Amino acid sequence: MRTIRDLGERKVIEIILGLLDSMPDMPIPFWDDVSAVPIGGDMVAVVKVDMLVGKTDVPPGMSLRQAARKAIVMGVSDFAAKGVKPLAALVSLGLPGDFREEDVREIGLGIGEGAREYGIYIIGGDTNESSDLIIDCALIGLGDMRRIVRRSGARPGDILAVTGHFGKTSSGLKILLEGLSPPEHLRKPLIESVLTPKARLREGLALADLGALTSSIDSSDGLAWSLHELSEASKVGFLIERVPVAPEAEEFAREYNLDPLDLSLYGGEEYELVVTVKPELWDKARDALREIGAELIEIGKVTEEGKVRLKANGELRVIERRGWEHFRGTRR
Amino acid sequence: MRTIRDLGERKVIEIILGLLDSMPDMPIPFWDDVSAVPIGGDMVAVVKVDMLVGKTDVPPGMSLRQAARKAIVMGVSDFAAKGVKPLAALVSLGLPGDFREEDVREIGLGIGEGAREYGIYIIGGDTNESSDLIIDCALIGLGDMRRIVRRSGARPGDILAVTGHFGKTSSGLKILLEGLSPPEHLRKPLIESVLTPKARLREGLALADLGALTSSIDSSDGLAWSLHELSEASKVGFLIERVPVAPEAEEFAREYNLDPLDLSLYGGEEYELVVTVKPELWDKARDALREIGAELIEIGKVTEEGKVRLKANGELRVIERRGWEHFRGTRR
Repeated sequence: MRTIRDLGERKVIEIILGLLDSMPDMPIPFWDDVSAVPIGGDMVAVVKVDMLVGKTDVPPGMSLRQAARKAIVMGVSDFAAKGVKPLAALVSLGLPGDFREEDVREIGLGIGEGAREYGIYIIGGDTNESSDLIIDCALIGLGDMRRIVRRSGARPGDILAVTGHFGKTSSGLKILLEGLSPPEHLRKPLIESVLTPKARLREGLALADLGALTSSIDSSDGLAWSLHELSEASKVGFLIERVPVAPEAEEFAREYNLDPLDLSLYGGEEYELVVTVKPELWDKARDALREIGAELIEIGKVTEEGKVRLKANGELRVIERRGWEHFRGTRR
Repeated sequence: MRTIRDLGERKVIEIILGLLDSMPDMPIPFWDDVSAVPIGGDMVAVVKVDMLVGKTDVPPGMSLRQAARKAIVMGVSDFAAKGVKPLAALVSLGLPGDFREEDVREIGLGIGEGAREYGIYIIGGDTNESSDLIIDCALIGLGDMRRIVRRSGARPGDILAVTGHFGKTSSGLKILLEGLSPPEHLRKPLIESVLTPKARLREGLALADLGALTSSIDSSDGLAWSLHELSEASKVGFLIERVPVAPEAEEFAREYNLDPLDLSLYGGEEYELVVTVKPELWDKARDALREIGAELIEIGKVTEEGKVRLKANGELRVIERRGWEHFRGTRR
């Protein structure tokens, strides 16, 4: 009989979901990035859980403090994509029995750091003993139903954009996992992108405030994967004209004879936002991010035809649906 | 250096809490059973996370389906104690890689069962691979600040009461853990109390509706432990005149030469409510529970002196603060 490794994460979720009653008039569909509970009028309480597991989510070289901070960032990034400010978090911990007092302090410091960075208060939690390190963050915020950005609103003609450059985290992960030793001016920023990821919360809130977005997701499972998710949820396709590759990733790719585009498309743990923007609000959206010292980079257009394609060197190539999937332990 | 096993759960939480900023004007204090976020007026979103770990929370003989159902019940019981109806849940799963499709189905069935029993919808979650089985439930509901029953409101003169009889789960756990073989008419109900625990949600909601309670907690860490928690939070003591021992536990104790009082006081995983009731509303509260086919059993009085004492056979004995503490792996 098949194990969960054979099934893959999505199939496991589908099996469980098939055995549950679904909530009538769910404000946000199950497969979107956050969940919501109506609290009166158009307002909803927005909730999200995100579990960090030591052996799959913490690469070699990442400290406990960094891992705990990352556990917060992971969930904040989903709130950022939906344009909702997280207000508070509850943290469930599973700690190995031989963890020392100092390890606990490191975890506390990391949680505190992540929370402070994004203006969140930790208001509760649960603590247990487990074999792996487990840090499961439940985030909660309040949102207006009419303004929360779904995965499903992209329309042909909308502008496809991202909040930053890609390829750093997959390069950094290669360094950490394969023990590569690029020159220090590359090693440092590439590793840093993995060890202290940043969620694009200010960016996501500013874009939602403008009402500029028709759909949005973060790129935590890789840019290609996120594009496919948006494409499926919105029933549209994308024609990508440019993938913004981080200069450090370009140089790293040259150094190790890798494809910079592959590093950028099929990475993951990269917390940029991938959004579709109403064309008439494009200038306003780009300027709004400039004003807060951030950037909104046009990478293509939403198309009627439901494929995710990349125009490069005058040729059209289809971008595969690949990324990281739990259980399979591989880039899918 | 001390490990978390030496430190114990409470100390671990204290270390982490000391490194976090606390939320100003927190609607419900950190050490209470649930957390809350203001959503306007006197209303709050009530949230609770409760993590079930296979190796510490699932005794031999408990099926995956029962374990998953229990993961829901654990959190519902805390909502019951606070008089708040949980509306929805998010479930984070950590599943061992060799789990089979059938195991996943069992977990889905158990989650669905627990959710249906208490009128909760599962609106999201996260799925990961881990060494242990981990089922972490985040529950959310809405409550009126003025009506949520804290741990801290008991006043001298209030009536101390519980919603059921004690000793069954600790007897059942002894059977499962030590492989005892009592007669079937005992074995069945005692084991059942462990494998399919019930949260006293209707009871908690009815009592809160009446405004009858001054403080409340569930008995999931054992009756003695819960009494000490209420006593500390409310800065009062208790004089207990009667511990209602379940007849099955009485008989089991006789059979194995155990102290039925010990089984009842220092058990755990027993989801009764332990409440203090305004004397002037006692009759109403008892009748309200009778009407829904439940019972409210007076067990003693709230006292000024901050001790938890039991009057038995004309003698006063102090009830120790003992119960189950994670990490230490023992009844504390």
